[in-house]
Amino acid sequence: MSEAGWSVHPQLRNDAAPVGDLALSRVLSINDADYPWLVLVPRRANVVEIADLGDETTLLMTEIARVSRLLKEVTRCDKINVAAIGNVVPQLHVHIVARWKHDPLWPRPIWGVAVSRAYDAANFERFIGTIRSGLGVSELR
Amino acid sequence: MSEAGWSVHPQLRNDAAPVGDLALSRVLSINDADYPWLVLVPRRANVVEIADLGDETTLLMTEIARVSRLLKEVTRCDKINVAAIGNVVPQLHVHIVARWKHDPLWPRPIWGVAVSRAYDAANFERFIGTIRSGLGVSELR
Repeated sequence: MSEAGWSVHPQLRNDAAPVGDLALSRVLSINDADYPWLVLVPRRANVVEIADLGDETTLLMTEIARVSRLLKEVTRCDKINVAAIGNVVPQLHVHIVARWKHDPLWPRPIWGVAVSRAYDAANFERFIGTIRSGLGVSELR
Repeated sequence: MSEAGWSVHPQLRNDAAPVGDLALSRVLSINDADYPWLVLVPRRANVVEIADLGDETTLLMTEIARVSRLLKEVTRCDKINVAAIGNVVPQLHVHIVARWKHDPLWPRPIWGVAVSRAYDAANFERFIGTIRSGLGVSELR
């Protein structure tokens, strides 16, 4: 499969900042200071369900595992939460979120709850820079 | 990796009925008549995060895709929701849930919401039988 015809869904573009591109997925970050939050979006047009990726499902999983591991190392969180929901934005995207046993919502899931508190701009940039560096990806042009 | 030392976490055993075993995962089903709900539990001891599975992450993804596809066919739902949360039950388990645009919670996620309405026993057995047959797995002894 190729990237032809793919672009980030406007709502994801609005809700999250670009981090960089892995082999299959664009990595985005939602600005939530309480729950460090990355999103993987496979750069494939018209893909809604994980199974729509065909043979590339396994590459997506490799990227989920890699990003999860990095996010856990960087944040020293207690648990990584992963979900592909897509009830609002149909374009396939996978949430990868750091959680702590002392965070405000623990143990409830983060999804379906209003975003709480944004980082200040410098801290969000710093977080994105750390992830970019950990993944060895460049800022998108 | 092997199954040595693995057993279903007591809370999962309490919350869900066994469907059968795929190559890596035990398939369970939560009895929720509004949201047909399967759970994959890799039969590996001491695995908490997806990344803990190492090389077997890709096998888990193959099973997620296969079970998602079957659940969508069987239920004719609008969307499959997939999540690995594990804030309450640490043993790695992946939820695969059928959702409809007309279901009571749409588009909100199902997680963190109380289970609504159980099937009657015959319908739950029929659902489990359909999944078992679609996956070609046997009832566990």
